[in-house]
Amino acid sequence: MALDAPDTTRHRTRLTLDGGALWQRLETLARVGAYDDPATGLVGVNRQSLTDEDAEGRRLLITWMTEAGLDVTIDEMGNIFGRREGADQDLAPVVAGSHIDSVGTAGAFDGCLGVLSALEVIRALDRDGVTTRRPVVVVAWTEEEGVRFGTDMLGSAVAAGRLSLEYAYGLTDAAGDRFVDELQRIGFQGHRPVRIEPPHAYVECHIEQGPVLLREGLAVGVVTGVQAISWQRVTLHGRAAHAGTTPTELRVDAGLAAAQITVHVRGMVDSGRYGQLRGTVGHISTSPGLPSVVPDRAEITVDLRNPDDAAMARAEEDLAAFLETLPKLQPGLAVEVQRMAKTHQVPFDPQIQDIITSAAAGLGFPTMKLMSGAGHDAQEMAAITPTAMIFVRGQYDGISHNPREYSTPEDCLAGLETLGQTMLELAS
Amino acid sequence: MALDAPDTTRHRTRLTLDGGALWQRLETLARVGAYDDPATGLVGVNRQSLTDEDAEGRRLLITWMTEAGLDVTIDEMGNIFGRREGADQDLAPVVAGSHIDSVGTAGAFDGCLGVLSALEVIRALDRDGVTTRRPVVVVAWTEEEGVRFGTDMLGSAVAAGRLSLEYAYGLTDAAGDRFVDELQRIGFQGHRPVRIEPPHAYVECHIEQGPVLLREGLAVGVVTGVQAISWQRVTLHGRAAHAGTTPTELRVDAGLAAAQITVHVRGMVDSGRYGQLRGTVGHISTSPGLPSVVPDRAEITVDLRNPDDAAMARAEEDLAAFLETLPKLQPGLAVEVQRMAKTHQVPFDPQIQDIITSAAAGLGFPTMKLMSGAGHDAQEMAAITPTAMIFVRGQYDGISHNPREYSTPEDCLAGLETLGQTMLELAS
Repeated sequence: MALDAPDTTRHRTRLTLDGGALWQRLETLARVGAYDDPATGLVGVNRQSLTDEDAEGRRLLITWMTEAGLDVTIDEMGNIFGRREGADQDLAPVVAGSHIDSVGTAGAFDGCLGVLSALEVIRALDRDGVTTRRPVVVVAWTEEEGVRFGTDMLGSAVAAGRLSLEYAYGLTDAAGDRFVDELQRIGFQGHRPVRIEPPHAYVECHIEQGPVLLREGLAVGVVTGVQAISWQRVTLHGRAAHAGTTPTELRVDAGLAAAQITVHVRGMVDSGRYGQLRGTVGHISTSPGLPSVVPDRAEITVDLRNPDDAAMARAEEDLAAFLETLPKLQPGLAVEVQRMAKTHQVPFDPQIQDIITSAAAGLGFPTMKLMSGAGHDAQEMAAITPTAMIFVRGQYDGISHNPREYSTPEDCLAGLETLGQTMLELAS
Repeated sequence: MALDAPDTTRHRTRLTLDGGALWQRLETLARVGAYDDPATGLVGVNRQSLTDEDAEGRRLLITWMTEAGLDVTIDEMGNIFGRREGADQDLAPVVAGSHIDSVGTAGAFDGCLGVLSALEVIRALDRDGVTTRRPVVVVAWTEEEGVRFGTDMLGSAVAAGRLSLEYAYGLTDAAGDRFVDELQRIGFQGHRPVRIEPPHAYVECHIEQGPVLLREGLAVGVVTGVQAISWQRVTLHGRAAHAGTTPTELRVDAGLAAAQITVHVRGMVDSGRYGQLRGTVGHISTSPGLPSVVPDRAEITVDLRNPDDAAMARAEEDLAAFLETLPKLQPGLAVEVQRMAKTHQVPFDPQIQDIITSAAAGLGFPTMKLMSGAGHDAQEMAAITPTAMIFVRGQYDGISHNPREYSTPEDCLAGLETLGQTMLELAS
């Protein structure tokens, strides 16, 4: 019996996955872009896309991929791919991954868990001497968060063909810096064509970023799809005026209108009229922003999410109708709406969901099915290949986009093992 | 008859004031800090206190004061005084002036009209060969607007003794730069002690910044006092969370609370319960300010004004009570209130009001009495000396703190002539 001979026909029952190595890499990556967060008293992560911190995180990831023997390529969007050949290299690969860019007040898990878990699965394949039939690819997508250039899932959306490379390259951040210039500046504009051939399947492991698994007492969950997401930027144009002297009826107060919209969005959510609508005004600013001057300009962002496309459409109609009433309340007010993002509800592939469910069950993890409240790169991949996601339980009510974001080492390992068995099954 | 002999006993019936020279200086000064204002399509003025633009404006003013033969001194707060001796230089002087610092979106008149009118009166005294009994002083006070260092009427408040020099020196702007460092940087920390000896009287000519004189068809008005002013900065501390996943009931949304306060302040005004209350939220900001993150921090400024101290107190109580309800609506929310400014209603001296009324009547200008909606340096001087103000009609509903702020040359001349006769009377 030749112990070294690769098993090319079927996978081992159970990969020996190294939860400790995963945890160490999560910690190491979290030190890139670390900052002292005054709101929580914790160390948070600020590693926004195409910053120097992002570049440092990318270099670290590539080092780890190279150490794991992967063939690393970078595409025109800066998406990073690490490929391990299969027995039949002409077959479409199984792709797994997520992103390593972060919001400005992040924890260590969002995105990174998916990339580093996929990497750890490949290390386990090597360790256990498994040659899969199909190639296996780890991917880290560029600018998933959308906080810097205003469009989320940007790298995967261009790779899947929903958005054009020209569109992405022309996006600018708050300082006016163009995406393409920043991509070149940090040295991550690769040569690999960005439009990818449809892989055999795509799987993404991700912290839930919500409280459902915690409430249900489950370490992992099977994601059925991603809810519809709508991002709009609303700019109000009023008239600057003296705060002490201008009669109320002569004011065109852009800040007041911004506040009215913010309160209205919460009212839409609380009304219960739009199903499981979530509504967030994350950004409010006024100009000139002085105590004694009625604002002539205000800007807000409105983030709406809904697992039901029809309910989402009705919510958006409600908001649009409310915006139309504002100039009636304050004649002279101009309302400008800019669409930042709009995705419909994306259902994931039932077969891949079944494979994940079986894989978890085989490992002794009971699961539930749940919908994702957040957008993920998986929803872009779902347009071109069978796709699903594994959610890992978060602590503290599932808080995310916050330094308090946390999953236990045990739950991360549960996610890692489920991902490993799923990839093995898909690649066989 | 010696034409050159100064008339030291009584003033001439009517000074020959040069409205054209005043207008030219207003225009020249407005070019310092000029900017193209996108909201109005006009050229506005941004000459905030202790900036390079302010320094340039100060140097221009000092050149004009020196050309007019004035003895120029600068005090420890950067307040600029230009003195013309009287027949009896031991008598307390008559002081007239205002300020030349501006808000970020200003016109040419706010403050500058008062300083340049007082200067023009002195030039007329020279031209007409008048020696007044008392010295006459033109003053330009530092940081009247309060937009840069957060406390308005700062220079005059320290001169009058309401605020300490140490307090003023320690104030910082949004960039963290200290007042005293900026004062030194622009070279305007003078040696003259800032606490001034009470002058004989203080008169300030100012654009109304409101619509009352325009509606009544009057070029000038006599100001009976300044309404009470309250500035508060309210900081909301919530919890950053993912916009797509965090259930609404688990959110502590600082931005929503800021919006609710903003809407409530307008509600207080509209309720009519607080007399002639005006309320303005000029500044709203959120942190981290990203579309997909529930804000963990928000900051607003609340500017309340009321001609009646009792009604003002009730309005402030209403606001404080509302702030207390916010953590009940969103458990975990912390509300921090910082007092930026608080002045009571200030009545002006009835005798000086009478002198202004007579002076205007003698020139053929009918007047009315009105209260000031804005704070002015005159209210600080009122604490140490008989004080009143002359308002000059503004156009376009009296809009101010806006590039559209405008008074006609004819109305400016009416204000100038009224100021001239008033100063002549007071200095005799």
